[in-house]
Formats: sequence, structure tokens, C-alpha cells
Amino acid sequence: MTKSRLEAFSDGVFAIVITLLILDVRFPADKPLTWETLRRVTPHLWAFALSFVIVGVYWVSHHNMLHFIKQVDRQLLWLNLALLLLIVLIPFPAALLGQHPDSELAVMLYGVNLMLVNAAGTAMWLYAMSQPHLAADGIAAALPGFVAKLHSAPIVVYGAAIALAHWYVPLGLILFAAVPAFFILPNPFIDRRLRAAMGASHAQK
Amino acid sequence: MTKSRLEAFSDGVFAIVITLLILDVRFPADKPLTWETLRRVTPHLWAFALSFVIVGVYWVSHHNMLHFIKQVDRQLLWLNLALLLLIVLIPFPAALLGQHPDSELAVMLYGVNLMLVNAAGTAMWLYAMSQPHLAADGIAAALPGFVAKLHSAPIVVYGAAIALAHWYVPLGLILFAAVPAFFILPNPFIDRRLRAAMGASHAQK
Amino acid sequence: MTKSRLEAFSDGVFAIVITLLILDVRFPADKPLTWETLRRVTPHLWAFALSFVIVGVYWVSHHNMLHFIKQVDRQLLWLNLALLLLIVLIPFPAALLGQHPDSELAVMLYGVNLMLVNAAGTAMWLYAMSQPHLAADGIAAALPGFVAKLHSAPIVVYGAAIALAHWYVPLGLILFAAVPAFFILPNPFIDRRLRAAMGASHAQK
Amino acid sequence: MTKSRLEAFSDGVFAIVITLLILDVRFPADKPLTWETLRRVTPHLWAFALSFVIVGVYWVSHHNMLHFIKQVDRQLLWLNLALLLLIVLIPFPAALLGQHPDSELAVMLYGVNLMLVNAAGTAMWLYAMSQPHLAADGIAAALPGFVAKLHSAPIVVYGAAIALAHWYVPLGLILFAAVPAFFILPNPFIDRRLRAAMGASHAQK
Repeated sequence: MTKSRLEAFSDGVFAIVITLLILDVRFPADKPLTWETLRRVTPHLWAFALSFVIVGVYWVSHHNMLHFIKQVDRQLLWLNLALLLLIVLIPFPAALLGQHPDSELAVMLYGVNLMLVNAAGTAMWLYAMSQPHLAADGIAAALPGFVAKLHSAPIVVYGAAIALAHWYVPLGLILFAAVPAFFILPNPFIDRRLRAAMGASHAQK
Repeated sequence: MTKSRLEAFSDGVFAIVITLLILDVRFPADKPLTWETLRRVTPHLWAFALSFVIVGVYWVSHHNMLHFIKQVDRQLLWLNLALLLLIVLIPFPAALLGQHPDSELAVMLYGVNLMLVNAAGTAMWLYAMSQPHLAADGIAAALPGFVAKLHSAPIVVYGAAIALAHWYVPLGLILFAAVPAFFILPNPFIDRRLRAAMGASHAQK
Repeated sequence: MTKSRLEAFSDGVFAIVITLLILDVRFPADKPLTWETLRRVTPHLWAFALSFVIVGVYWVSHHNMLHFIKQVDRQLLWLNLALLLLIVLIPFPAALLGQHPDSELAVMLYGVNLMLVNAAGTAMWLYAMSQPHLAADGIAAALPGFVAKLHSAPIVVYGAAIALAHWYVPLGLILFAAVPAFFILPNPFIDRRLRAAMGASHAQK
Repeated sequence: MTKSRLEAFSDGVFAIVITLLILDVRFPADKPLTWETLRRVTPHLWAFALSFVIVGVYWVSHHNMLHFIKQVDRQLLWLNLALLLLIVLIPFPAALLGQHPDSELAVMLYGVNLMLVNAAGTAMWLYAMSQPHLAADGIAAALPGFVAKLHSAPIVVYGAAIALAHWYVPLGLILFAAVPAFFILPNPFIDRRLRAAMGASHAQK
């Protein structure tokens, strides 16, 4: 399996998941269309937008990880498929969140799905970095650990979101949204540390 | 993120959205199939065809934009994902339009979605053109402004469509259809201006 | 628009359509699963298999057409999108055929969809061949006409299928299946004529 | 048809099938969300995970097969489409298994689908290996037979799973899961034999 095949296949799965999310934004066929009835679709729209952005961030991280991996072996292939399985799962708790926006249980399932994705991503990264024949050449010593922290830190945040949702559900949802915002908004903290951690040869991604 | 990865991912999303639109053209399972009952599917068919063509035009514009962009940075990546989010949203108001073809509200939601797509596309274009390290070399001075006008002009037309639909819904739908027709039909106005605005090095796209 | 982008996008749409067809093969959620109840799914399975094979043949023909086209212009791009629109439509009459396997109307709609696909394919091919800057170099004089006949001949067969279905529906379905069989099964008639019609430079596809 | 086009198209179909599987994991819209009601989704989740892994293994095998094939002809193209048809079918018995996890009939249909996939894969492989203009150069004499055994052995296991399910359904499901586990888990038996069977020139895949 070449790296580019793996990348193309994974990109395909990401593109399909991110698009399928819209299938849960549905207006009931038997209702008249008014502002009033439309309001029921709102939580589905939020669940869609949140999940789209989260899957988008995962796609970018996946791409960034593979940038530092020069080759794919059997183990990495299956770790990648395990990661994709968890990504493909996201539309299920996303639909639950759209149907039951006030449910602590829906927040929990959504959060657990995201935690598993981040755990699988971290495992895949750490495995690749531990194998000299897989990791790209000239990676600075500090990079593997720093990226592993970036991948695993959200696990703690999602855990906190689940805990806060027990108290007040919208707080959990806000924390979910905070994670992609942290990665999307210009972030001098990450940029500086990442640049420091990166070998010169990989500065341009 | 290389430009070609971004392009391939975006193309995948466009291809999936354009195909998923057919999922809303459904005949009710419990009805006998006659010309009479089939007539209920007609608005769904129109909404499908209109949306297919509109998404097709967006795909071509997206491709044309990227032709003048040589590199992708973090900001452009997220602007592109924001654009894709709005593209992925289109099947939702398209389904509403198919279900409620006489509803002013459906026309409005559809129009607002399209306006947002054009606004996001214009923003992405203007951002890329404002960054010398992203814009392709040798772009004629007049091109960025001309293309920005091409991308933002439909916003006005869609606004007019919404206003006219308040009066008489089919007028709004006709205006929606007029926008892709303007871009698809041989258009000496655009061709001449575009050729004038383009640098010689980009004449062949 | 380069030819390879157009090809990749079209391939994506073909791959999605051919896969979405399975979504219509559904067992009702509220029925016990027995051989008896399962029998209701059979027409959906046939409609799926027939449509899968037909779309597969269209995919191969599309690929073969593009083999003789070296460049894409604006007109060809939109002709190609028109062809894709009709391909994307196929799951709709396919679902009708699965729901109403005995309906002459379902056979007719299915047949009309296929006729339109072949007409659009023929138009796209004839346009490309009429433009010296689009057609590949060294195409033998006889090729354009021969391929146009291959693309348009099924229109007559589908028309006959519709006419026969008026009499006895299964006859129409058998004719539908005969067309892909003609293209898939080893066919010395086509092979010999195609080899004769092809320029030596294109003998290897 | 070049090999890379066939590969890209097949990869697209695999990526879509593997992702569509999630569409069957649905929580009923009219039920309150509790641990109790959620339990009904569990069999759908298992059917999803099992099918995801099985399709994943098929994707990897398909890729590995194509590694030893240097060219594609008409016959191979249609054998590949027949294989894809059977892959695209998988979500149907997978949905049945999710709906009726205790049904011997569901296990049987699922198993028959998988048997057909393995039979089609074996046929495609044996055909390619029998044609000197298709098989890659320098393939060791022992490879075709060994890979054919790897592809056809699961047919026996799936048959046994169906037979055991007649007795006790979960035994059948466990055997289904055993097949991908055998291919995914580090497997010194396969590795050693495969290395022995492979020509030196293909040792790196």
C-alpha cells in the first residue's frame, strides 16, 4: 500500500462523511412549512455545522500527520482503518444530538465518539513515529511528542464537556465547539511551538 | 496542504453533493404509480435539476478560482472549508423547495443559501488575491476585481429573486435559473472581458 | 478545465451513483424476516443489478470516449455535466422499477432516462469529434461515425423495449438487459469493426 | 482502461460503501433517548462494525491483487465490476443483520454475499494470472496459487458460519468476525508463506 493510495482513500472517506451529515437535516414531509415548524430543524442544523467543522479539522490533522510519514506498513494501514471507522461513526451520534439537543446522553455519546477518534489518531501517530522506516527523515526530536499532545489534549476537553453537560447541556456543546475553534482560529501558541518543534525540511506544509 | 490535495477533496465533496440531490426525488412507497400520482414528484425533479446545475456551476467556478491560486495556506484552507460547508447545505433548502414549491419561505431559504455560497466564494477569492504568496504569478491587475464581480453579482440577483417571490413565487424560481444559464450559455460579454482581464500566461485554462 | 480533472470528477459521480443504487434495496423495518417477506425485495434487487450494470457500461463508454478527446472546452464541459445529470437521475426510475416491477409506466420512465443518457453521450461525442482542437490526433476517419452509431443504437432498442412493455412488461425488461449484455459479452462484431475504425496510435486502450 | 483509472474508480466505490454502512445505524425519531431505547441500536452498531472491517479487508485485498497486475483488459474490467457489484450489495444483508440479529436467514444471506465476493475475487485473480499480458513480470510461480487459496479459503469459513448459525446464531457471527481478524492481526503464517511465494521484485508492497 503506497502512502498516496492510503491518503486518497482516506480523503474519499472524509469527503463522504462530511457530506452525508446533511442527510440528517430533514424537514418532516407532512408538516406545512412555516417559521414555526422550521424551528424544529434548528438543532439538526447546529449538529450538522458542528460535526462538519469537527470532521474538517480531523481531515486537516490526518493530512498533517501523513505529511510526516513517508511509508505505510500493515500495522499503520489497520490503525488508519480503525481511525476511519470512528470517523464514519460520527454521523450517528451527530444525528442523536440533532434529534435530542437537550439530552445529556446524546452529548455523552457524541463526546465519547470524538474521544475515541482522538485516541485512535494519537495511537496511529505514536506508532508511525516509533518506526524509523515509517517516519519521514529529518523530523526534529521534539515534534512527535508535541503533535501527540495536540492530538490527545482534546480528549480531556471532550471529557470535561461530558461532565459539564451533566450539569447543563449547552455548556457541553460550547466546549465541543471550542476545540475546532482552537485549531481553526489563528493560533500563535500552536504556530510558534510547532515551528520550534519542526525540522527545517518540513517547515513548508 | 498542497493545492492538489485541496482540489481533490473539494472535487469529491462537489461530486457527492451533486449526486446526493437525487435522494430527494422519491415516489411514495404506498401509492399506485400513475401519471396522476407521478405529478407530485415533478417539483422535486425541478428542484433537483436546478440544484444540480447550480452546484455544477459552483464546481466550475471553484476550479477556475484555483487555477489562479498557486499555493494554499491555513486561512485559505478554512475559507475553502467554509465554502464547502455552504455547498453541502444546499440539498436541505433544495429538498424544502421540492416539498413546498409554492412557498415563499422555501424560495427565501434556498436563495439565502446561494447568497452565502457566493459571498464565501468571493471572500476566498479576494483573500487569495490579496496574498502575493498565494496568487499565481503574472495575473493581470484587472483580473481579481473582475472575477470578484462575477462571484458577487449573483448575490444581487438572488436577493431580487427572494423579493420577487414575495410577489409571485415562480418569478423567484426563474431568476434562480437565470444565474447558471448566464454562466453556462455562450457569453461573449464574459469571454471578452475575461480575456482582457487575464494575463497571457493564463489564457489557456 | 483539464481533461484529467473532468475525468476524475465524472468518475467520482459514476462511482457514487453506482453505489447509491443499493439504498433502494431495503427490507421493511416492521416485518418479520422470512423467505416469504423477503420475496418483496426481489424486484428491488433486480432493478439494482440491472441499473448497476447499465451505469457500469456507461462508465466504460464515457472513459472510452474521453480516450479520443485530448482537450476540454467550455461547451464540452457543459455537455459532460448534462450527461452526468442524466446519469445521476437513473436511481429515480430504478427505484420506481423496483417498487412497481409490473408497471408499464415505470418501464417507460426508465427507458426514457436511458434514451436521454445515450442521446447526451452521442451529442457530446459528435461535438468533440467536430472540433479539431478537442479530438485526439490521428483518429481514423471512420471512427467518429462508428462510435456515434454504437452510442445511439441503444436508443432504438430502449424505444422498442418501451413499446414491447405495453404488451408484456417482462419483455421490455429483457430488452433493457440485452443492451449491456451486448457490450459486456465478448463481441467479435464490435471488436473487428472498432479495430478497423481506429487509428493505429489508439489501438491500445 | 488504464490500471490506475480502474484502481481509482474501485477505491471510490469501496470508500462509498464503507461509509454508507453508517446510514443503517439509526435511532427511531419518535422514541425518547434513554439507555434502554438505545439498546435497540446495538445490533445495528455491531453489523456496521463487522461490515466496515470486512469491506476494509476486501479493499486491502483488492489493492494487493492489483499490485501484481500490470494491465487491464476488457474481461478483467468486467470481472472487476462484477466484484464491485457484490461489494456494493453488502449494505443490504448488513442492514438485515442489524434489524434481525437473531435470524438464521439474515446470517445466511450475509454469508452468501461474502462467499460470492470471495468467489468473484478469486475468479478475477485467476483470470489475470492466466494471462501473461496482464500479470506483472517476475511473479514467482507459487504466488498465483497461494493468493487464490487466501481468497477462496474464507468461502469455506463462511459456509461453516452459515451451518453453525442453523444451530446457534451467535456462533455464525463469531466465525464471520474471525475471517477479517485472521487477515488483520499480525499473521506469521501468511507473512512467511507470502514472502516465500513472492518474487523479489514485488517484496515491497
